[in-house]
Amino acid sequence: MNVKVTVVRDILEANERLAAENRALFDRHEVRVVNLMSAPGAGKTTLLEKTVAALSGELRIGVIEGDIQTSLDAERIERAGARAVQINTDGACHLDANMVAAAVSKLELPALDLLVIENVGNLVCPAEFKVGEHAKAMILSLAEGDDKPLKYPLMFKESRVLLINKMDLQPHVNSDPARIEQAARQINPAIEIFRVSCKTGEGLEGWYGWLRAL
Amino acid sequence: MNVKVTVVRDILEANERLAAENRALFDRHEVRVVNLMSAPGAGKTTLLEKTVAALSGELRIGVIEGDIQTSLDAERIERAGARAVQINTDGACHLDANMVAAAVSKLELPALDLLVIENVGNLVCPAEFKVGEHAKAMILSLAEGDDKPLKYPLMFKESRVLLINKMDLQPHVNSDPARIEQAARQINPAIEIFRVSCKTGEGLEGWYGWLRAL
Repeated sequence: MNVKVTVVRDILEANERLAAENRALFDRHEVRVVNLMSAPGAGKTTLLEKTVAALSGELRIGVIEGDIQTSLDAERIERAGARAVQINTDGACHLDANMVAAAVSKLELPALDLLVIENVGNLVCPAEFKVGEHAKAMILSLAEGDDKPLKYPLMFKESRVLLINKMDLQPHVNSDPARIEQAARQINPAIEIFRVSCKTGEGLEGWYGWLRAL
Repeated sequence: MNVKVTVVRDILEANERLAAENRALFDRHEVRVVNLMSAPGAGKTTLLEKTVAALSGELRIGVIEGDIQTSLDAERIERAGARAVQINTDGACHLDANMVAAAVSKLELPALDLLVIENVGNLVCPAEFKVGEHAKAMILSLAEGDDKPLKYPLMFKESRVLLINKMDLQPHVNSDPARIEQAARQINPAIEIFRVSCKTGEGLEGWYGWLRAL
């Protein structure tokens, strides 16, 4: 058991060193970087499609798409009008700094103002691995239920902003956004929260403003 | 990198040995065991509440609840009328055979016909770790989108049954259950699929029949 713990710590420490190198590279090129995380199907890619469409007139946006398999998401982002690089983790449940460094080498950093790294859909593991971001952002779909902050606290603790997405489903699900907000703030009093619907566009201006100010 | 790979393989092999021991114990007591997996908020606990209510007259059901933190789910299952033991993984993103062995020691196996092990909400890691089950079952919420089998193939490959839950949300989401079924069967041609709604009760008879026949 001690061996396992030591190995895990070594992996995390090696990852933090690489993440710091990524971060220095981003700073050198004055690119602001967001690590976007959520459970599968909470709406990360749809949010990015909307974001690219809304902000590409004022910010030059690049996206790194993390998925276990397929390049479906990178194709969606390219169609929305931003440069996208796909990482396939081939089974791995999160992105790490090394994977992101490899993807970044395929991007032209001087041509970007904002880089969003869409992590693998997973409410647990991605929160443990820095990739060089300036801020972590997370999405919770209202359909996932209002008990999630208490049951998956680390991601809520690590994230600087929480988007409660799919607010349009509120009449159809037993999930109270006020309860989500209260529990998230109990874990992370400084977390900024926006209630949004990527379907109707509700609340997205708050998120765009947060990105502009990052 | 080679060291990391070797360690991961050792952990998986040690886990498989313990899982085989758990399985032998279950067989000795003639308890059938299901490992129930899904992303966070797909409806595992609600499904189990319904299942306990519907089947407890004919099957003696026990539940092991896996969560990173809280005992909320075990409390819900006990209220529904079944014996439940909570495992808190304290950060770990999946149950393993060792955790399940510890929880099983708190259950009276001779008093059970069916044991359902509700895994941590995660569409990736739990599929890699056997816990001694006779079958893996998974839930996908319709609200998660119809691209999930292609993006998270291992869980669909490992599961003997797939429940497409929250069918009641179909009028409100852009997600086609036929596309989910087609993609899931492409990965796993033998998978049994039931479209259900734990809210309305739609389709649950199929799942109950599958449990009776296990």
